[in-house]
Amino acid sequence: VTQPAGTPAPVKVRLGSNNYGKADVRLFKVYRDQPGQPQGRHDIKDVWVRVGMRGDFDAAHEIGDNTGLVATDTVRNTIYALARDHLTGSVEAFGKDLIRHFVSRGPRVSGAYATFTEHLWDRLPDPARTGGHDHAFVRQMPKRTARVDGDGQTFTVESGIDELFILKTTQSGWAGFHRDDFTTLPDTTDRILATTVTARWTYLNAECDYDAVWAEVYRTLLEVFPDHYSHSMQHTLYRLGEAVLTRCPDIERIHFSFPNRHHIPYDLARFGIENGGTIFHADAEPYGVIEGWVERE
Amino acid sequence: VTQPAGTPAPVKVRLGSNNYGKADVRLFKVYRDQPGQPQGRHDIKDVWVRVGMRGDFDAAHEIGDNTGLVATDTVRNTIYALARDHLTGSVEAFGKDLIRHFVSRGPRVSGAYATFTEHLWDRLPDPARTGGHDHAFVRQMPKRTARVDGDGQTFTVESGIDELFILKTTQSGWAGFHRDDFTTLPDTTDRILATTVTARWTYLNAECDYDAVWAEVYRTLLEVFPDHYSHSMQHTLYRLGEAVLTRCPDIERIHFSFPNRHHIPYDLARFGIENGGTIFHADAEPYGVIEGWVERE
Amino acid sequence: VTQPAGTPAPVKVRLGSNNYGKADVRLFKVYRDQPGQPQGRHDIKDVWVRVGMRGDFDAAHEIGDNTGLVATDTVRNTIYALARDHLTGSVEAFGKDLIRHFVSRGPRVSGAYATFTEHLWDRLPDPARTGGHDHAFVRQMPKRTARVDGDGQTFTVESGIDELFILKTTQSGWAGFHRDDFTTLPDTTDRILATTVTARWTYLNAECDYDAVWAEVYRTLLEVFPDHYSHSMQHTLYRLGEAVLTRCPDIERIHFSFPNRHHIPYDLARFGIENGGTIFHADAEPYGVIEGWVERE
Amino acid sequence: VTQPAGTPAPVKVRLGSNNYGKADVRLFKVYRDQPGQPQGRHDIKDVWVRVGMRGDFDAAHEIGDNTGLVATDTVRNTIYALARDHLTGSVEAFGKDLIRHFVSRGPRVSGAYATFTEHLWDRLPDPARTGGHDHAFVRQMPKRTARVDGDGQTFTVESGIDELFILKTTQSGWAGFHRDDFTTLPDTTDRILATTVTARWTYLNAECDYDAVWAEVYRTLLEVFPDHYSHSMQHTLYRLGEAVLTRCPDIERIHFSFPNRHHIPYDLARFGIENGGTIFHADAEPYGVIEGWVERE
Repeated sequence: VTQPAGTPAPVKVRLGSNNYGKADVRLFKVYRDQPGQPQGRHDIKDVWVRVGMRGDFDAAHEIGDNTGLVATDTVRNTIYALARDHLTGSVEAFGKDLIRHFVSRGPRVSGAYATFTEHLWDRLPDPARTGGHDHAFVRQMPKRTARVDGDGQTFTVESGIDELFILKTTQSGWAGFHRDDFTTLPDTTDRILATTVTARWTYLNAECDYDAVWAEVYRTLLEVFPDHYSHSMQHTLYRLGEAVLTRCPDIERIHFSFPNRHHIPYDLARFGIENGGTIFHADAEPYGVIEGWVERE
Repeated sequence: VTQPAGTPAPVKVRLGSNNYGKADVRLFKVYRDQPGQPQGRHDIKDVWVRVGMRGDFDAAHEIGDNTGLVATDTVRNTIYALARDHLTGSVEAFGKDLIRHFVSRGPRVSGAYATFTEHLWDRLPDPARTGGHDHAFVRQMPKRTARVDGDGQTFTVESGIDELFILKTTQSGWAGFHRDDFTTLPDTTDRILATTVTARWTYLNAECDYDAVWAEVYRTLLEVFPDHYSHSMQHTLYRLGEAVLTRCPDIERIHFSFPNRHHIPYDLARFGIENGGTIFHADAEPYGVIEGWVERE
Repeated sequence: VTQPAGTPAPVKVRLGSNNYGKADVRLFKVYRDQPGQPQGRHDIKDVWVRVGMRGDFDAAHEIGDNTGLVATDTVRNTIYALARDHLTGSVEAFGKDLIRHFVSRGPRVSGAYATFTEHLWDRLPDPARTGGHDHAFVRQMPKRTARVDGDGQTFTVESGIDELFILKTTQSGWAGFHRDDFTTLPDTTDRILATTVTARWTYLNAECDYDAVWAEVYRTLLEVFPDHYSHSMQHTLYRLGEAVLTRCPDIERIHFSFPNRHHIPYDLARFGIENGGTIFHADAEPYGVIEGWVERE
Repeated sequence: VTQPAGTPAPVKVRLGSNNYGKADVRLFKVYRDQPGQPQGRHDIKDVWVRVGMRGDFDAAHEIGDNTGLVATDTVRNTIYALARDHLTGSVEAFGKDLIRHFVSRGPRVSGAYATFTEHLWDRLPDPARTGGHDHAFVRQMPKRTARVDGDGQTFTVESGIDELFILKTTQSGWAGFHRDDFTTLPDTTDRILATTVTARWTYLNAECDYDAVWAEVYRTLLEVFPDHYSHSMQHTLYRLGEAVLTRCPDIERIHFSFPNRHHIPYDLARFGIENGGTIFHADAEPYGVIEGWVERE
């Protein structure tokens, strides 16, 4: 490498926090011949995986010495290979196995994280019987997410829900808020409340039935979202958090990010037409965003 | 406008087929106090609308004379305004009303089309009773689509389904195909078959219960997709078309576009691990595409 | 396959127009050691390819007989293999070679199409000399597109430009248009005109310097878009078409699809602030769409 | 709200860290009649803004009391209104003004952040003269990003670059890395290195010429990316960081997130064709990700 004349001498720098790995590994697993299941009854898991490793990677950065570095292609191979025998339950449990593997086998790896985006599928109906089709499926919303991070001994686990679109057409308002020079929005005590839930939560204990907790959080969100008059998205966020923490003793705290998908009554009075709370513009942008943690006291 | 020196004199040109209108009009309607429904029971319709108009727009193009042109902003206002009283049933019926309006009111409009992408919502559960919540909803896959085109007197109607993800884990193969110098794929008689259905169909008659037909097509796709050994995506396409035309006497013909979402067994034998039909890479790209019409003979 | 009791007997159907092939084949080619270029000077081509084949595929659809069918995996292999020696110039010329291949080698193929989306890259600067870097590149907007269709003997070629974002902040208006009950938009003689160009054109002759034509169309769009007072998007569409047909004698006709990306003056008068043509809301949706062909007379 | 029988009594919870505001505010500003510019010479700024506020919002969450809460609609109005006189230079400076406003005017606001995604536009060519067109523009890659956070008195500023696609066709390898049971990738000393740069950096001082720094970082990335043999993405990351810190004395540290967009030589040997480093598959997924900070020592 030649330096053009006039190039300043490099200043002294150092590597800060860093990690590397593989993203968007699209893993699909079929479970056949499971104990207690009839012959030909399949289950599936459809999950996008990302793994990132931390450790002593200074030499690779500073002088291009790759000794001891696990290739990201090896990370990919490993995810598929370990899934064969280790992805037998929740993605959270599999994440711990992945991290244990990379910390124990990667010569320079001291910690790692694994994130998961799981696409959920229902069985197709089988006209011939109840319980759904043995081997045919249709994809559902929302998505299940998870992030596991650790040093191979201890782990922090975060589970989540994404792309859950819910709305209610009444029992929601926004009134009594602060008014200043730039406020034009009138008070309302009857509006549409619509959002796309992104939730994630942490756990009190190191082990837990992650699948059961996820199902309970999901059920709780669907039940509690409409069970009250909502004074604001903040108000509903808090109630949802309170309900989840009440019903799920394994959860330590829960975070929500709620885009407020505004549905604005279209001004038909200009045309001599009474809207009557029927015709709305579902505005794409901009949108309010309300975010917060609800925690145990 | 000054022409730079050396600019050639314009050649003689003319306007060919053309249309203009408004796209991505996000219309949301709430149905309250409907006959036969209890007080407070709401229904909703969530649909993105596009309208395009055809006619004699030569002067606008050629000399910038906008006389008689309907503004696209007026198109937007009109969609919301007409939805108030005219969007009482299917989007297909509403599309006819929109086209009738623009042809009769637009001084230069001789024909128009309206396309719809409808987001489908289920009622949230209501723990207190069956039948779901009165006014709270959760969004579902797939999407319902429609395109209506006409001159205000006669219409062509096309309805469709989009973003329906289905797969089966067995009872599918691809064998006996042509082999040439560039063929490396082995025959298989057991593979995963996965696709995202995009279907659209036309009708035999000018009027029809579009909602009922859509529901029957949807039901048929879910039932027939897994009910046979699939020799190819083409084979399944034909069977689906045959079943739809058998069950839906109102439909004239149906078109499918099927991306073949390949799920490739991951080569674990390199690591001394038997895959056993369990671990697949869900390949994002490239993908096969199989498209065709199935018609009545 | 057993039919549930009550299933109606299948009606008589037939296969209509159909095609199949491979989509989203991401082909990247490096040109090394080219004649007339210094050692180490590379060129690149980065293109997404789709190929669809037509022919007598009835048996595959009707009875699952794949005899003579080219696998889509073979299509993929073929695209990469032929690119080695045949992708030496424009994607349009390569498309003809692909179609010739599939028609001559596919036992049941009578015709095919190939579509291309080409990502354009500029050379990075090389501080040591002019002419840019020998082997380092940065991606540019817009995209170049093409579609070739044919039976192996004759071809229709369509070339295009996509994702070209252009705007002008003045010299555009929209006035004198039709006003009816649903019209609320005032006339304006000074507005922002912003669009994303999607253009495609056909050719008068079977052979042509496609690269040179593309460059001239691109140059013409950039020059002519701002060279006049625009009475409407339609007005500008026509002028652009006229200019392209004037400057490019090889082109038969050209089609534009112009979303009208509305930039709406934000109402600051409510806050006692004069906007003065400075502050706009760049509205994402809905948007006007103006589409049309300009043809030689 | 009635509790169904059997519903457990709510546990004690509290609100954790939280914020709310408006996202995806699409602000477009035209600068006319600027000092030192000829009449009719316009500049533009096209930026998507998000603002989030922190403070004492407990009552809103806990009991639905909105007293003192700034509506997100007011946030939107304020962004547009303040842009009139305050968006005169960099988005970073404007971000400070926005935060000062919300902290001083929001009765319950103690801090806020503002994020910006700026779309960059070049002037269209003007055939009549140099310097580009007065009022017509074409959009460019990459994007400029910024995040300002503060309490109204002190601020942390982070600036960035996004969607910068760069590649080099040689002078890159990946060799000497760790090999274990799951490693199948061979060493290479000549590969394509392709990435999409996402960079962000912080500053040593409270005030700074943000526009000049951004331009220098951008120039540095383009120059340094190809100026060395890259032993790994990590190696190049470090060199880029070192160069930026050397050339930009205002920058404290810089973070890169580099997807490694793999370009895999397509195996043509199976067809008796020599690839010769020409034909690659540009793999969409999975991809490596290399992330890290480079800091001053």
